[in-house]
Amino acid sequence: METKKTMDKIVSLAKSRGFIFPGSEIYGGLANTWDYGPLGVELKNNVKKAWWKKFIQESTYNVGLDSAILMNPQVWVASGHVGGFNDPLMDCKKCKARFRADKLIEEFIIKSGKEQINVDGWSNDMMENYIKDNEIKCPECGAFDYTSIRQFNLMFKTFQGVTEDSQSEIFLRPETAQGIFVNFKNVARTSRKKIPFGIGQIGKSFRNEITPGNFIFRTREFEQMELEFFCKPGEDLKWFNYWREFCKNWLTSLNMSDENIRLRDHEKEELSHYSNATTDIEYLFPFGWGELWGIADRTDFDLKQHISVSGQDLSYQDPVTNEKYIPYCIEPSVGVDRVTLAFLVDAYNEEKLEDGSDRIVLNLHPALSPFKAAILPLTKKLSEPTLQIYNKLLKKYMVDYDEAGSIGKRYRRHDEIGTPICITFDYDSIEDGCVTIRDRDTMEQQRVKIDDLERIIGEKLEF
Amino acid sequence: METKKTMDKIVSLAKSRGFIFPGSEIYGGLANTWDYGPLGVELKNNVKKAWWKKFIQESTYNVGLDSAILMNPQVWVASGHVGGFNDPLMDCKKCKARFRADKLIEEFIIKSGKEQINVDGWSNDMMENYIKDNEIKCPECGAFDYTSIRQFNLMFKTFQGVTEDSQSEIFLRPETAQGIFVNFKNVARTSRKKIPFGIGQIGKSFRNEITPGNFIFRTREFEQMELEFFCKPGEDLKWFNYWREFCKNWLTSLNMSDENIRLRDHEKEELSHYSNATTDIEYLFPFGWGELWGIADRTDFDLKQHISVSGQDLSYQDPVTNEKYIPYCIEPSVGVDRVTLAFLVDAYNEEKLEDGSDRIVLNLHPALSPFKAAILPLTKKLSEPTLQIYNKLLKKYMVDYDEAGSIGKRYRRHDEIGTPICITFDYDSIEDGCVTIRDRDTMEQQRVKIDDLERIIGEKLEF
Repeated sequence: METKKTMDKIVSLAKSRGFIFPGSEIYGGLANTWDYGPLGVELKNNVKKAWWKKFIQESTYNVGLDSAILMNPQVWVASGHVGGFNDPLMDCKKCKARFRADKLIEEFIIKSGKEQINVDGWSNDMMENYIKDNEIKCPECGAFDYTSIRQFNLMFKTFQGVTEDSQSEIFLRPETAQGIFVNFKNVARTSRKKIPFGIGQIGKSFRNEITPGNFIFRTREFEQMELEFFCKPGEDLKWFNYWREFCKNWLTSLNMSDENIRLRDHEKEELSHYSNATTDIEYLFPFGWGELWGIADRTDFDLKQHISVSGQDLSYQDPVTNEKYIPYCIEPSVGVDRVTLAFLVDAYNEEKLEDGSDRIVLNLHPALSPFKAAILPLTKKLSEPTLQIYNKLLKKYMVDYDEAGSIGKRYRRHDEIGTPICITFDYDSIEDGCVTIRDRDTMEQQRVKIDDLERIIGEKLEF
Repeated sequence: METKKTMDKIVSLAKSRGFIFPGSEIYGGLANTWDYGPLGVELKNNVKKAWWKKFIQESTYNVGLDSAILMNPQVWVASGHVGGFNDPLMDCKKCKARFRADKLIEEFIIKSGKEQINVDGWSNDMMENYIKDNEIKCPECGAFDYTSIRQFNLMFKTFQGVTEDSQSEIFLRPETAQGIFVNFKNVARTSRKKIPFGIGQIGKSFRNEITPGNFIFRTREFEQMELEFFCKPGEDLKWFNYWREFCKNWLTSLNMSDENIRLRDHEKEELSHYSNATTDIEYLFPFGWGELWGIADRTDFDLKQHISVSGQDLSYQDPVTNEKYIPYCIEPSVGVDRVTLAFLVDAYNEEKLEDGSDRIVLNLHPALSPFKAAILPLTKKLSEPTLQIYNKLLKKYMVDYDEAGSIGKRYRRHDEIGTPICITFDYDSIEDGCVTIRDRDTMEQQRVKIDDLERIIGEKLEF
């Protein structure tokens, strides 16, 4: 029997067990920033390692990259972020509350039960007129007295060097993707890869969101795992489908429940003007469906933009046919923090056991678990030989040693943080060279040889 | 026989083989930013993994953390960065060149052969008077006509939210350390660690340096690996020495040559007012000795500052003796980019072989090598069975498959990027299930069973 998962429960477990703390907490925080604690950093690093393993190491198509957060401002002219990465903001003149005009309209439509319309791409005038025509009142105070809409750019701005003028103005990257596009030629030249090939990277990005929220789902500072996969024009839809499947399989191979995942293909009207196809992989969070992964066929839009602004030749010449073309690009882009949250939510379970007791358990895939095993002496008297096993295993894996409290209490403690197995050293172990392995998910126990532990843990990590 | 290593050679190899590219290159770059290419990202990630393995995973003292780059501005008041993290700048009125006054004086002293003096801690007046008294001329144009000194804060500033005023002003962190101090209580509460224990983290930091340079040695955006190790007052010097040794051993265990490393203990006058001891581990780069690692006994300075500014109780109560105190802290802090550069420089060798030919080789420790092995078919006709080995090994390790060119050419290509072994599948392999392993460093060849490859590679990675 399972009880309801709520965000409150997840946030509370995350804080009390050292997964995720509020950022700058002793100073009252800083609007929705979060720090990953000792268990959280392991979980998040394991998510990143799992991505790198499948998308880079094991992929014969792809190579990795790690480009700088600070880039030449012309990059953001080419990408469209200087011109078009804006939120349409308006304030209520009475209560000073600030809104995104598009969100105000969308919420009004949902509340009033009107026919769904897509506000994306509307001009400021269209939005202002719609708000006026429908007399949409301020959701905070009920007034109907707004400022006009102004465009607010979501890039964080800073100054490099001593002077604070437009000459030295630079931006924190709002996405890692552009670092890949500007290096397309460098990688093609030095990596001996031929099209089709992809370049992937993991790194921080920054967006000055007006309303961050839902724990680590939407934060101003966040981490991305992006792949830009370059292929021949005309073969793009084939590869789009390939990566669409690949991404979904990555999630389920790491134990994410199929029934909490849906693939939402964008309708033709919803597509960006340059995109041939886009799919969002969404996860059912306690607060509703939220986007995890965007997979987009971006055609040759980005490379063409960079060719036009930089004046450089970024075309590709096929080494066999000598054919020259600008490659098309498939972009699967996923947020590390939100996919980590999805794994955490999905793994969280409250169980009523047969004996009537309750347990909280994180059924994380062992590859994602912070600790791969907990090594427990049955009593403190056995700590010395148990520590020998621990000291050997920690050279291979992230493992914990735990001698505090009853065995049952220690099992529960490790259930709650997702440790896949507990290994108990008892008085028989000295004689028979065996220990008891207790499985987190089935709670079944099994006697195994100490010499086999390394192999047993290793096999659990495969996915 | 070895020839001289120069930065030019290292930078050129890094660029041509895909280790490190100039940042935003197609737009003419952005002052000393760099992007890590397919091989560079593997090398840098391996450096980070090697630190995490020894400082976190295998250490029974330490746990990890990953705190946000954006923090509450009060953090930087407490740390002293708002008040004291400045460079003293002055301009030549004639040619408009900009200088750090302290560097101007230091260079003058060296050039003129005067007795060494330590400028650290001088007031602006003292520096201006010294420049006047000694008529130090502009090194660019020879004029003697400067503006007065002004303090320039090295933190990058940005604005969170819609308005650009002092209320919304925040900073990009200039170090990762403060994210650890503000979480000291959170970690102590949730991790079951008792003092002495440490908290380590890896992450980006930003400093608005006036003169970044020397390739990736000094960049405005850089990555740090910092440990804050908390101990009982009075036991600090013991732990200082422990970590001082530990850090040095980490470098040499990863093959960094002992003769290119020196430990420079700070003299009493050089120490910060709060520090009981500080040592810089320096590496002999082609451009001279440069600091890799700062190991400092920071006493209780940082926690006390945060107690004073936040008003929170950050003291520690010993669970056995009930004694309450503010822990002392040892901080080993190393820059990822510069230690990666040191490993690269140290590994770079040009050899004249017995047969008279030259080879360039990176004698990287296999744990740091981008590829752990290259899998080569003797001829393209053997590609199918060779690919089977490759496809099996890439599930375990980052390995390369290479069938282009003669075997000798392929060996050289992998010598140059530090691949520790080349594995060649030949016509006998089909019969005897064996392949030839060629060692990068000794160039010796050995016949081994295909089934043993996974174990052989695994053993090479140990350190």
